Order: sequence, then C-alpha cells, then structure tokens
Amino acid sequence: MDRPAEFALIRRWLTGMDQGAGVVLGVGDDAAVLAPPADRHLVMTVDTLVSGTHFPEDADARDIGHRALAVSLSDLAAMGATPLWALLALTLPTADEPWLARFVDGFSAQARSHGVALVGGNLSRGPLTASVQLTGHVPCGQWLSRGGARPGQLLMVSGTPGDAAGGLALWNSAPSPDRDALLARYLRPSARVALGQAALGVAAAAIDISDGLLDDLAHLCEASGCGVDVQREALPLSPALLACFGRMRATQMALRGSDDYELLLACAPESLPALQRAAAELVCPLTVIGRFETSAGIRINGEPLADTGAGGFRHF
Amino acid sequence: MDRPAEFALIRRWLTGMDQGAGVVLGVGDDAAVLAPPADRHLVMTVDTLVSGTHFPEDADARDIGHRALAVSLSDLAAMGATPLWALLALTLPTADEPWLARFVDGFSAQARSHGVALVGGNLSRGPLTASVQLTGHVPCGQWLSRGGARPGQLLMVSGTPGDAAGGLALWNSAPSPDRDALLARYLRPSARVALGQAALGVAAAAIDISDGLLDDLAHLCEASGCGVDVQREALPLSPALLACFGRMRATQMALRGSDDYELLLACAPESLPALQRAAAELVCPLTVIGRFETSAGIRINGEPLADTGAGGFRHF
Repeated sequence: MDRPAEFALIRRWLTGMDQGAGVVLGVGDDAAVLAPPADRHLVMTVDTLVSGTHFPEDADARDIGHRALAVSLSDLAAMGATPLWALLALTLPTADEPWLARFVDGFSAQARSHGVALVGGNLSRGPLTASVQLTGHVPCGQWLSRGGARPGQLLMVSGTPGDAAGGLALWNSAPSPDRDALLARYLRPSARVALGQAALGVAAAAIDISDGLLDDLAHLCEASGCGVDVQREALPLSPALLACFGRMRATQMALRGSDDYELLLACAPESLPALQRAAAELVCPLTVIGRFETSAGIRINGEPLADTGAGGFRHF
Repeated sequence: MDRPAEFALIRRWLTGMDQGAGVVLGVGDDAAVLAPPADRHLVMTVDTLVSGTHFPEDADARDIGHRALAVSLSDLAAMGATPLWALLALTLPTADEPWLARFVDGFSAQARSHGVALVGGNLSRGPLTASVQLTGHVPCGQWLSRGGARPGQLLMVSGTPGDAAGGLALWNSAPSPDRDALLARYLRPSARVALGQAALGVAAAAIDISDGLLDDLAHLCEASGCGVDVQREALPLSPALLACFGRMRATQMALRGSDDYELLLACAPESLPALQRAAAELVCPLTVIGRFETSAGIRINGEPLADTGAGGFRHF
C-alpha cells in the first residue's frame, strides 16, 4: 500500500466519528483539541485487544470493533463516568479495506450509542491489535473506586456473569439459539455505563468484571481492606448458560470466566432500594450475591476460597 | 506467568510515575481521575511503535521506551501544547522483567524531563508494540495548526533533518563518533516541545516531521491551501551526516528520511526575529529553508517536485 492510499485510509475511516461534546478540533492535525467540561474531573483509561489473546483470530471485524470500545467503556462504567472522547491505535497486517469497514461499523455503532467522539487515531502495519484510550468525566471529587467497600455492605453483580465464558467455549459448536445468545455476550459485551452513572453517589465501591468475578472481587476486597462471603445459590445464571452447561459448570463459569464486562457493586443495605430502582429503570439485572465482612479474603457459602489458580484471564 | 505475578508487574512498573499536575487518582483503579487545568483546551494524540516496523527488533528496550513517549511528545510539540498525562498500552511476547526495567527507565526519563505523569497502563501478551496516548494543554482557542501557512510566509525547520535516516542506515555499521551520533538521533529523538510552546502565538503553522520532511511539508501545504519553494542549499545538514554520506545523499536523507521528529514552522517575515530569538534561548537550531507561495505543490529551487514515491515512511 503506498503512502497516499494510507492517508486516504486514515481520512476515510478515522474521520467522521469526531463530532461530540467539547470537540474543538477532531481528527486531521497532529493532535485533537478538546474543551473539558466545566467543574468536572476527567477519567481516563486504556485497554488493548490482541488477536489470538483477547479474541479468536477468525472473529468478525465488526465484533472486534464493538469489543475494542466496549472494554474501555466498561472501565469508565466502573468509575461511574460519562464517556466523552476516544483515541484508537490500530495495527493491521494489511490495509484490508473491507475489514476496516466492518471494524469501523462495529466501533462507531458503540461510539454513537454511548455518545463517544473518536478524536484521534493511529494506523500502523503490524500484528492485529486494537488499543482504545477513553476519556470521560465525573463530578469533581466524586467517582466509584475499588476501595470503598466496608464490612456489612452488600455485594451485587449486574447481568448474568459466565455467559461470555460459555459463549467462548461454544465458539466452534453448531449454531443454536442458546449458543448464539451466549456467543453474542462474549463478542458484543454491553458495558454497564448507565448503571455506573446511576450508582455514582449511591454505591460505595465498584469494579468491572473483565478477568473473572472472583479475580476482580479479590481486587475490590484488597483495595477496600475487607473480605466477602458470596452465596453460591444467589449467582444469577442465565437460562442459556444453564441449558448448555448445567448448574455446576455454569456456576464455575460465572465465578471464574472472564470477559463478562459486568459490574460488581458494594452498597450499604439502606442504599439498596435506590440502587435496585435505578437498575430496574435501566432494565439492567442487578442481584445481591454476598455481604462484605471484616475478615479478609473471599468465602463462598462461608467456606474460604481454595484458590487453585484455575480460570480467570491471564494477561501473560 | 501466573496472575499474581502479572499484577505485581503492573504495580511495579506502571506505578510510581503517576505524580504530576492535576493527577487526582493515578494508576491502580479501573481508570485515572484527573483535574484539567482551568481555562485551557486539552490536546490529545496517540502513536504506536511496532517492533520490526518502527524500530529494529534488536533495539535496546531503554531506547524503545524513550522513543515511545518522544513520538507522541512530538505531536504535542507541533500543536504548541504543554504535556501533562500519558497512558501506555504495551504488548509483550513474554513478561521479561529486565526488558521492562529498561523500557521503563527510558520512558520515565523522558516523562520526567517533560513533566509528564503516567496515569494509566495496560500490559498484554502479544507481539511487541508500544502505544502511547498523551494529553497536553494550550490556552483556549490557541494552538499551532497545519492549516495556517500563507503565501509570503517563511518555512523553517528545527534541528538537522536526515540524521535519523542516516543513523538507521548505519544500524549494522561499526561504531564511530559520527555513526553513533546519528544513531542516537534515530533512537532517542528530542521532541521539540519547548520550541513548539515558544512558537505558539508567533508561528502561523506547524507540523512535526515523522514521515519525512517533504511528506509532512506536503500535508502542511495541503491543509494551508498554498505551495512552497524550498532552497536546497539552505537545508541544515549535520557535519556527521555530511561526513558519513556526502552532500548529495545527506540532502536526500534530509528531504525524504523519516523519524526526525523535528518541527516545520511557518511564520510571517516580521515574526522571524521573535522566533529566532526564542529558538536561540532554547539552544535549538532553527533554519529558514523556503517561502510559501500561492501556487500549490512543493518546488525545490523553483523546480516542481518530481515525486517518485521514494523515501518517507510507509505506514503500510
């Protein structure tokens, strides 16, 4: 691919998504110029998807585009932030225009539905990776942290964890309504941005489940300086997951499977009704699955977790 | 590498560089929280280095770390912005701690010297790539754009272009003072951040030379809607480049070689003394090499450029 064609690619695919709040100068100069919202703190995160590590090499480019943005949106959701601006660094083995068209299609649909403007991009030749940096905002001094859970508070999870792991396990299986529903949850996760925003000022702590419920819960407990007891029977398992894997394996997937991009929330019992009402208005399942305790560590039905190291996502 | 070790890596290597202006919450939660400076616009860019494409596979990790930040700093320099916050997305084939230590060493030295705080990071297993997203600030409504050059204005270049291309061409050559000096210019470019800031409000347009002087000059002319005549003899060639390659090849490298990370600036003749004085105070070479004209396109000593497509950097 010669140089003019490469610039045409950047122009064609990375512009046109740069309209949004505070965008003074979008894609096309050495950098974007942005007006931060008044009296707000900014919230920033970066996440990278690597082909063969974070998605199967034969995944549809549209799903990769969706997912590249969704995983960063999930980080902002866990902070209670409102998304604003994204920068995309994409490395591609070849300048495959149909692939790019599908990637952009998935990415921009996610961007539109969350009001995100793509304000900068970088296209390089290399192994397939997509790195998305995302900026959002919160009221000054107010965000959902991992460190706010306290003994006596309740632990909640959004959605039906385990579905993504179930979908990935069925990647090469024959299509069926249940398998397709689970696979969609893996390929096109719905970052819980609205729930995170609603939980701001109500929940005491939050983290998103990217690496597995127990792994991310362990981070939350560690940051909060307390422990938790999870009720196994309270885990919200989807009918599709139960149908495909049975209760025992479904439970294991819900506890250990990665890629759910659901939220774990901690809240005081008296704040529960407000949180449940907000979730109901968003038609977002939110289930109490445990209670925080003084004693460090994670217990399941009172039994200390025997951490075998199995499951959860390994970055390395 | 098991999971606890991976988190230890993130903690060890991506924290401790997160002190800086406006950093409310650094590395360690789902995202960073930042207080934007009052009455400023933000400037954002992202750049990715891919092993084997943007640097030789056997390059020193310290130089890769330096370079990963420098190329993004150069984008901010071209906007006249003051750097603030960086996010780093690193993919590595293995969790090689000595490699990471050297990478961080080079990255953090650059960060310190430009007052940049690393506020977020992502470590993934994959082919070696380093993507740096950088945020800076400018006075509201005031930035150096590519589109501000006008006929009659002067074209200037900082530093001695071509050195980086010369250094790369001598990658496998025997060490010598000239070869080592050129190679250092390739491996550890100095983003002209202070010059860009000094040019803000004085220069009419700016772009950084990452892809080659003529290629980037073409972007500047196109964005500005004018052309330019470059004086070949005015090109500032370094003694090392001349000694290693002779005038003809050195000139070609200065015009077509990539990776210089110098600035091209446009300014009205009456603004030249102010810009020259500012550059002198920064001990930054700044040389007038041409004049913008009404007629579109690039000319060299009055001759229209025969663009053979040779030289310059190909992203694909």
